[in-house]
Amino acid sequence: MLDELRNAARRAVDESAVRTLLRDCRRLLSERGEANSAAIARQLVDRFIALPAAGQATFFRRLASDFSPDPKRVLQSAQAYAKASTAAHLVDLMRATEPPRQELLRRINRTPGGTASIVAMRRALLARVAAEPELGAVEDDFLHLLASWFNPGFLQLRQVDWHSPAHLLEQLIRHEAVHAIDGWDDLRRRLEPDRRCFAFFHPQLPDEPLIFVEVALLPDMPDAIAPLIARGATADPPAPGRFKVAAFYSISNCQPGLKGVSLGNFLIKRVAERLQDELPQLRTFCTLSPLPGFAAWLAAGPDFAALPGLKRGGAGRLADAARLLQEAHGDDLAGLHGAVAQQAAQEDEAGREALLRLGAAYLVHATPLPKGDPVARFHLDNGARLERLNFAGDVSKKGLKQAHGLMVNYLYDLDRIETHHEMFTRGEVAHSRAVAALL
Amino acid sequence: MLDELRNAARRAVDESAVRTLLRDCRRLLSERGEANSAAIARQLVDRFIALPAAGQATFFRRLASDFSPDPKRVLQSAQAYAKASTAAHLVDLMRATEPPRQELLRRINRTPGGTASIVAMRRALLARVAAEPELGAVEDDFLHLLASWFNPGFLQLRQVDWHSPAHLLEQLIRHEAVHAIDGWDDLRRRLEPDRRCFAFFHPQLPDEPLIFVEVALLPDMPDAIAPLIARGATADPPAPGRFKVAAFYSISNCQPGLKGVSLGNFLIKRVAERLQDELPQLRTFCTLSPLPGFAAWLAAGPDFAALPGLKRGGAGRLADAARLLQEAHGDDLAGLHGAVAQQAAQEDEAGREALLRLGAAYLVHATPLPKGDPVARFHLDNGARLERLNFAGDVSKKGLKQAHGLMVNYLYDLDRIETHHEMFTRGEVAHSRAVAALL
Amino acid sequence: MLDELRNAARRAVDESAVRTLLRDCRRLLSERGEANSAAIARQLVDRFIALPAAGQATFFRRLASDFSPDPKRVLQSAQAYAKASTAAHLVDLMRATEPPRQELLRRINRTPGGTASIVAMRRALLARVAAEPELGAVEDDFLHLLASWFNPGFLQLRQVDWHSPAHLLEQLIRHEAVHAIDGWDDLRRRLEPDRRCFAFFHPQLPDEPLIFVEVALLPDMPDAIAPLIARGATADPPAPGRFKVAAFYSISNCQPGLKGVSLGNFLIKRVAERLQDELPQLRTFCTLSPLPGFAAWLAAGPDFAALPGLKRGGAGRLADAARLLQEAHGDDLAGLHGAVAQQAAQEDEAGREALLRLGAAYLVHATPLPKGDPVARFHLDNGARLERLNFAGDVSKKGLKQAHGLMVNYLYDLDRIETHHEMFTRGEVAHSRAVAALL
Amino acid sequence: MLDELRNAARRAVDESAVRTLLRDCRRLLSERGEANSAAIARQLVDRFIALPAAGQATFFRRLASDFSPDPKRVLQSAQAYAKASTAAHLVDLMRATEPPRQELLRRINRTPGGTASIVAMRRALLARVAAEPELGAVEDDFLHLLASWFNPGFLQLRQVDWHSPAHLLEQLIRHEAVHAIDGWDDLRRRLEPDRRCFAFFHPQLPDEPLIFVEVALLPDMPDAIAPLIARGATADPPAPGRFKVAAFYSISNCQPGLKGVSLGNFLIKRVAERLQDELPQLRTFCTLSPLPGFAAWLAAGPDFAALPGLKRGGAGRLADAARLLQEAHGDDLAGLHGAVAQQAAQEDEAGREALLRLGAAYLVHATPLPKGDPVARFHLDNGARLERLNFAGDVSKKGLKQAHGLMVNYLYDLDRIETHHEMFTRGEVAHSRAVAALL
Repeated sequence: MLDELRNAARRAVDESAVRTLLRDCRRLLSERGEANSAAIARQLVDRFIALPAAGQATFFRRLASDFSPDPKRVLQSAQAYAKASTAAHLVDLMRATEPPRQELLRRINRTPGGTASIVAMRRALLARVAAEPELGAVEDDFLHLLASWFNPGFLQLRQVDWHSPAHLLEQLIRHEAVHAIDGWDDLRRRLEPDRRCFAFFHPQLPDEPLIFVEVALLPDMPDAIAPLIARGATADPPAPGRFKVAAFYSISNCQPGLKGVSLGNFLIKRVAERLQDELPQLRTFCTLSPLPGFAAWLAAGPDFAALPGLKRGGAGRLADAARLLQEAHGDDLAGLHGAVAQQAAQEDEAGREALLRLGAAYLVHATPLPKGDPVARFHLDNGARLERLNFAGDVSKKGLKQAHGLMVNYLYDLDRIETHHEMFTRGEVAHSRAVAALL
Repeated sequence: MLDELRNAARRAVDESAVRTLLRDCRRLLSERGEANSAAIARQLVDRFIALPAAGQATFFRRLASDFSPDPKRVLQSAQAYAKASTAAHLVDLMRATEPPRQELLRRINRTPGGTASIVAMRRALLARVAAEPELGAVEDDFLHLLASWFNPGFLQLRQVDWHSPAHLLEQLIRHEAVHAIDGWDDLRRRLEPDRRCFAFFHPQLPDEPLIFVEVALLPDMPDAIAPLIARGATADPPAPGRFKVAAFYSISNCQPGLKGVSLGNFLIKRVAERLQDELPQLRTFCTLSPLPGFAAWLAAGPDFAALPGLKRGGAGRLADAARLLQEAHGDDLAGLHGAVAQQAAQEDEAGREALLRLGAAYLVHATPLPKGDPVARFHLDNGARLERLNFAGDVSKKGLKQAHGLMVNYLYDLDRIETHHEMFTRGEVAHSRAVAALL
Repeated sequence: MLDELRNAARRAVDESAVRTLLRDCRRLLSERGEANSAAIARQLVDRFIALPAAGQATFFRRLASDFSPDPKRVLQSAQAYAKASTAAHLVDLMRATEPPRQELLRRINRTPGGTASIVAMRRALLARVAAEPELGAVEDDFLHLLASWFNPGFLQLRQVDWHSPAHLLEQLIRHEAVHAIDGWDDLRRRLEPDRRCFAFFHPQLPDEPLIFVEVALLPDMPDAIAPLIARGATADPPAPGRFKVAAFYSISNCQPGLKGVSLGNFLIKRVAERLQDELPQLRTFCTLSPLPGFAAWLAAGPDFAALPGLKRGGAGRLADAARLLQEAHGDDLAGLHGAVAQQAAQEDEAGREALLRLGAAYLVHATPLPKGDPVARFHLDNGARLERLNFAGDVSKKGLKQAHGLMVNYLYDLDRIETHHEMFTRGEVAHSRAVAALL
Repeated sequence: MLDELRNAARRAVDESAVRTLLRDCRRLLSERGEANSAAIARQLVDRFIALPAAGQATFFRRLASDFSPDPKRVLQSAQAYAKASTAAHLVDLMRATEPPRQELLRRINRTPGGTASIVAMRRALLARVAAEPELGAVEDDFLHLLASWFNPGFLQLRQVDWHSPAHLLEQLIRHEAVHAIDGWDDLRRRLEPDRRCFAFFHPQLPDEPLIFVEVALLPDMPDAIAPLIARGATADPPAPGRFKVAAFYSISNCQPGLKGVSLGNFLIKRVAERLQDELPQLRTFCTLSPLPGFAAWLAAGPDFAALPGLKRGGAGRLADAARLLQEAHGDDLAGLHGAVAQQAAQEDEAGREALLRLGAAYLVHATPLPKGDPVARFHLDNGARLERLNFAGDVSKKGLKQAHGLMVNYLYDLDRIETHHEMFTRGEVAHSRAVAALL
């Protein structure tokens, strides 16, 4: 009873706060706001941050309901434009169609710290939108504006190394998503002279990396992750002249509020260009990437025959491979890798081949499907080519669980990325002869 | 005959170049372009720059005709949204309505130097749009995006002084639009310790000032421009503690391609805040501004009775004042100022009062009209207050010709700018008692 | 037998290397060297570094024997100057007296990295000089030049915080000599907003801190070290306005090769001035310092009666105090502190007082003696005043062992440091009334 | 009478000020001063600056008389060292010999701005020392310390261009000593892409260039100055790849107080190294230099037979050349150059040859003499080689008057500067075959 009263009281307070916040929004959008927008926007942002989650949700709903375009006015403008497609009609149509909340966000963005606030708001919004599709149009407006503001022309590429500020390196440790960095000594290994790390920054968020990529400089294309991230300074790094390969082995986003804004694609290409300038002897730009969905796909017993683009007899060969593995190892392929680790892959050469064939099929034939491997989709859509599958590339617990230890190299050939990207938009996966030979 | 052939040949070459350029545009907008946009955009920009003026015009016309939204698709989406205003329908409507050339500009903006290219493109477009209204919607897209990218949250305020790079100072000399800077010695005077200069910069155009403002620090609100810009270092500038007034005496845009993007408004307020931080003893932030349209307005014989908001008897008093000036000086009021310059204003006290009254009426009653004084409209719309008219404030040739020597102080009271701005949107001009007493 | 041969061979190689190095030295000092000194100096430094320790020792001996002034020429010049003290004779005398190795070092210093090389050379030299006094004049030349080059006018004071480069912070962890920093998390605590860290840098060694000091901002003068260096971010640091005291709690040299060059003295004063500028509300600049020699002094059974400057009856009171402690605790005073730690000092109030009295006597009466406490000598010579002794100020193992847990505050009163310093040069220790009351 | 009284009064005031200043000096040198040197030094410097010239002279005299080493103590130390050349005796000797004013200057140097003050003091001192040789030992101490502090290892080489701060460029205009810069437009020509300008800076004087050199990048070694400094941007500068020659055409000191500190030598070599890095295609580093003393030497009627190192018959050939010129042109060779300017050198081919022969003799045979050409001595002592004489190289009024229009190229061959420098110390001038052929 008391609790109910208390909750009701809290709800009343929250509702009042949301009402005040909406009043701020209207004031900021008004003529008055035009003259003093920075001050009003600052206040508005402070009020939003102070709201509890429920209040923020209410606020987003009101952004959806109260700050959308007027359907009637839109229809009239569209009819006028359909009748006579003049410049004047088009300008009028666009005025009528743009949701007022876009201008609201642009005015918030005018204030110092405004951009960071909008990124934070979107983060909160993204957490809601799956459950409330009606917030989708609001989310679309946030994404539309952020994509415009975080376009790569505005981003600064900076190298991160052991001379970088500690507070920045700390964020790398925190945000590394692919191969966790276990403290400062581990980080240091990844910033040695035979390693590179680059991040994108936005002028409005000068202390916050948006996304960063870790690169290993090597004589050859790498086939396993462990040597790349092993701790301890390399006693004798190869002479710079011996580096022929730049391998992108980890790429991590730092800003959940920028989800969906294309950053990684541009980062990889800008870094490749920059490394090519710095080290003209580099011949190969590639990744060493996980296949996070492979084990789950295999465990689900895929219908090989339904895979698009198989060669003749391909489905049968895949079924044979799956059966062979199942018989020899059951669900647990650790034994297989154990053998490898003991440099005795020959003991189960057939098992090794079966696993690589299934991996190749997963990437070449299953990636283009809607639920295809996300890492593969990212690189293929960027225009990379599937170059090589690596058996026992990641024998960490996570690597064995997700992909039975397989890893993959995607190749970035800057002269051919346009062609490869286009292939992928048609549903084809560009791949090397070596991969084709597995199928 | 030969000339005709030559012209025809040139036209053919130009048309071919425009066709190639449009192909670049479509490629950049395509799926292929997504993967390699920076390279394509660079090429596209180079091709545009190489076009002769006529070719650029053709290109803009094609942007208008070929990259506008499809009226039918727009109408269908608008009808769906009118029927059911769901998020999905709204997102679809917005996709249908946005002209594809907006995405084109966003992709050009991704490349290094892209922003500068778009500003340059708009400069060329603005030169055309008055004569070809059908380019208006294209121009609207440019303005829409540039306003979003050059929002004040992204701009950097930097002080410019004698320690600034020479190439930057050179641009100040070139772009000063209000009171011309006559070479380096003249510039130096404006950067002495009792002067300030601030400019806005955009991270993408780090060497290009967008707009700059010149400020004089003074013990009192200034009533004439000559002492502020007199050459030669001030022998004895007042002690910093004696400065009570910051007078903005010149504000100049450097980028014609950013016309219409609101910069001056924010610059003045940011500078006022910064000076208040640096010099807490400052009490007054004001301008010393010209009335560029006053003399022309007066010469056209305005119908005083039609001015909105006049006090009772006001029209008669203005007519009297105009008649008195006409009888005493004809069209040439130089004699009146000559007297003043000789410190003998008392000889024609009545003429002096008549001129101030007419100036006050021009600003208070004629500014809100559509063709009102542009400088007055700028400051009043920013939320400034009309504070004082200054007889013989600018007795340069230009000052006498444009405004019979009158100058005006607008007062920026940061606590009241919102109110003043709102008054002005209602057609009222906030003004001091001293100004009211003139009417 | 083989070993002997091997050793002989090695010695021959070393001797040859030293001979080559000495030839470099002569060449650098010659006319030829003047024209190309940077190149020769670079080579010379490389050769020195490549020498084994024995070779370096030989080299230093040759610097002493071959690069000293000629006694005969010196004597002649001195006689001429004694006869007629003209400017010409003085200039000649100085030319004759300066060891040629000084010019050698100055020429080495001309090359990029030269300063760092000379610091490194001196480090090696210092390790030898105790055992070989004849190297003393060489060492004196190194010190003379380094003191001139590392004078505080050339040093840059920089704040070190969490935004500083990681490689710099790493050096703090490595060089902290007073209260060890246990890794990155521990360091971070010392760089929180209520802490400050400052270091001196030399323009020629931009990445190498020379010396750094750690400061705690506090409401009151601190009486124990543990709370200052406790790990974990302070949940609620006091508001900046509440800081009244800046306590220097650790000062560490980073360059053994600069031993004897006065840095700490200037660092403390520059930091005090800077903090006073930044936080005008600071009232007290003091240290929280160890008494590293106290326990050893006490254990040696000092002759109290021989202490200079004792008040009447002082020796007797000290002897009583020593006896009391001895009887109650023997050599191990840990029990005494244990009581304190349980906030039961009252259990052994007499023991506490006895210890403080002995500490005060040690600092006030034994410090001016040649073997006095080094930390006390440093601060008193800087012009600080002995302000307060703190019982149980450092109950770490090291603190208990060195000083039975005592710590001391020295007060830096910038207006009185000259007077206090002069007192100390006369053998008097400036101290507060509270300290006097203990004696 | 009144004047005498007034002068006496002023003298009394000055004497009192000098006495106060000397008291500051003794205090700074004392033990008290050690603890608070920065504050005392600041005051001392202010007092010195406030002194009138006569007071400064008195002060310098007192530095000579009161702050020199004690002859008796010096003699004792020298005797002890002569008897037993131990390290201890040497250290004692050096303590006894160093004038206390050296330590005084080192302590002044500790304060912010101290270095600049010492440079300014020496400037004042240099103006006196010619007339008062007894100040020579004081001057020697200043030079000794400044040479140590301004050693090239401490200097920063910075490129100066149109992006440099205006206040810096202004100093170039002011200090250019060889070919005057006539305002900002003239300066701009010298900072175009085919020009370079570099300056040395000291960390303690960050805004003050010490010395700067101007360089022209050219396809060929230049033979005349006019084209290098002609105003107006070069319409079409050659492509960077076409630059084969870097010609140093002007080098100017900015700090009279650093006279005698070797800067130009190091500047030229550091710049040559840097340009070689930036533009590996550069083949030749040379100067285009004046012969400031040639015309005066010739006019004085030199005794050719007395020139050292002449070939057989050389004196006769020179006498013939001088006679020929005298007969054809008298003292005024302008007519000769007039002919050249009209591209009609053939009209007086014999006159041209005679002039070049005399110029070559002046440089090759007269430069090693004590009063030899200062520019030649500078470059030859740096290790440059005399490469080519250029007839009509500088036909400006100054060029004709000083050297009858001759200019000369000195060649810097970094691999041979040591050899050439050594030759010059033996009295030989390294020169090309082309020059030898003239003699």
